[in-house]
Amino acid sequence: MSIARAFITGGAGFIGSHLADRLLASGCHVTVYDNFSTGMDRFLDAASMSARCEIVRGDVLDTAALGAAVARSKPDVVFHLAANADVRFGTQHPRRDVEQNTIATFNVLEAMRAAGSTRIAFSSTGSIYGEADVFPTPERAPFPVQTSLYGASKLAGEGLIAAYCEGFGFTGYIFRFVSILGERYSHGHVFDFYRSLRTNPAELTILGNGHQRKSYLHVQDCIDAILMVVERSPERVNIYNLGTDEYCEVNDSIGWITAHLGIDPVRHYTGGERGWIGDNPFIFLDTAKVRALGWTPKLSIREGIIRTLDYLRANPWLFEARG
Amino acid sequence: MSIARAFITGGAGFIGSHLADRLLASGCHVTVYDNFSTGMDRFLDAASMSARCEIVRGDVLDTAALGAAVARSKPDVVFHLAANADVRFGTQHPRRDVEQNTIATFNVLEAMRAAGSTRIAFSSTGSIYGEADVFPTPERAPFPVQTSLYGASKLAGEGLIAAYCEGFGFTGYIFRFVSILGERYSHGHVFDFYRSLRTNPAELTILGNGHQRKSYLHVQDCIDAILMVVERSPERVNIYNLGTDEYCEVNDSIGWITAHLGIDPVRHYTGGERGWIGDNPFIFLDTAKVRALGWTPKLSIREGIIRTLDYLRANPWLFEARG
Repeated sequence: MSIARAFITGGAGFIGSHLADRLLASGCHVTVYDNFSTGMDRFLDAASMSARCEIVRGDVLDTAALGAAVARSKPDVVFHLAANADVRFGTQHPRRDVEQNTIATFNVLEAMRAAGSTRIAFSSTGSIYGEADVFPTPERAPFPVQTSLYGASKLAGEGLIAAYCEGFGFTGYIFRFVSILGERYSHGHVFDFYRSLRTNPAELTILGNGHQRKSYLHVQDCIDAILMVVERSPERVNIYNLGTDEYCEVNDSIGWITAHLGIDPVRHYTGGERGWIGDNPFIFLDTAKVRALGWTPKLSIREGIIRTLDYLRANPWLFEARG
Repeated sequence: MSIARAFITGGAGFIGSHLADRLLASGCHVTVYDNFSTGMDRFLDAASMSARCEIVRGDVLDTAALGAAVARSKPDVVFHLAANADVRFGTQHPRRDVEQNTIATFNVLEAMRAAGSTRIAFSSTGSIYGEADVFPTPERAPFPVQTSLYGASKLAGEGLIAAYCEGFGFTGYIFRFVSILGERYSHGHVFDFYRSLRTNPAELTILGNGHQRKSYLHVQDCIDAILMVVERSPERVNIYNLGTDEYCEVNDSIGWITAHLGIDPVRHYTGGERGWIGDNPFIFLDTAKVRALGWTPKLSIREGIIRTLDYLRANPWLFEARG
């Protein structure tokens, strides 16, 4: 089903702004809805030039502003990407995950229901599998136990969307991401490592023991998958893992980064299997379901990391902006 | 681990008031916290006679009142039973499930965290398995897709509790109930059927086709299981299905009811596999895990229905109170 009008919450963010660019390039009318708390005006430099792009500064917790914007946009599909993506510090402010990931999703669903808009795509996370005992982890893995507020708050969002599909005739597209990398990336391991190495290329502190295994996906591969699923997947509730069919250790990632930068820092490990409380030592998703639709990622994890690094080197302003 | 001090949200409700009675009988100090929206003073007639029982009229959405009550109670265990249990009409007021089941659970967890209380027992539901494809359904069934706002809002509560266990050192006891029956029951099939038959014993309207398969558990068996799990189950996150190892069709239930009442009404079926949108045509839980702790239900489904019926006949005031 093609998309003529799209509404993107978090549309000024890392993934959202790329999605806006892609949808605009395909002739779509796009409403970006973002509170610019982590979203960036500069990410919308290209998008904002389009007559088919409307940018609304608003918060997903502001139900009146959100409702008015959705009603005005009349979207075929709402891409609900706005979220608190700060996985690591969940225990420092548990309310943030509940409000920004669970209640915000409810607000988006209610705004859609009021506006008669019934297709929603949602950025969930591989973290909702908690400590999986099946690898790669399929969508219908054994019912997981949550290990982070982030995962729990996204699981709650998934559940609400599925219930709206059943109860209100919505169609849901739920994406359980591994970590996403690429241009405009400004959050997570590679960002943190590169920021540290810019300041001090001689040393690097690594949370945990470095053996945490992680999967990454490049943002353009991610968006390819999202758009393919929204166009082709026929169910009422469409749930897809998104990732590459490989994983790496944090140590591999550091090796690629330092080799690309031509440096060899001394590595200090804080120790332990987890980088922080609630960190998953291993996320590796089974992506057979999305591949069966015809999608395949174009970039390996290593290539994604290198492209991210090249972007960060070319955009030092991002480090100022992120403080 | 034994319980000296307990805090029961929804303590004036059907299950909560029985739990209060049982804990008081075992010498425990009990704080009942209830807004009496569906809870009943009369359910606490016995409990309120005890010097070890404190009754607080408060709402779980009133964070200040809740926080003060938990802090004053200093409970070993919080039994969080307050909920919107109105499964059927979720689509008429979706906010109710989100607020009363998800946000309320978050409020309880935050009140506990502030008070340094870290053990929580939670009434979840077999509805979170959605349309299960494994019967009887075990706790680690394939990751389900939600089919009701009620199930989704309880799933969100479970996720939050598990995340607090991991992030804040809480211990969680999560109970996925089938429908509970027994004395003080005032909600669900048996109540609705008996109420209708009191008015007109010649006819009965049945939502769906009557072949919906349901499991029921008697409230005392339910409380036996809850207390056994809280005392014996050693994990950080303890998740248990609670139910009998049998099920019945709605038609069986009607047969037992009408036979016990000595009537033979004409049955009218509204048709369809589901009684309402989001109704699960079949809930049947695998209870091997709780049985392995030594628990076994004392009453069959049929016996539970008969005892419920006898209670309802002896307490016509309940029909006035429920309108």
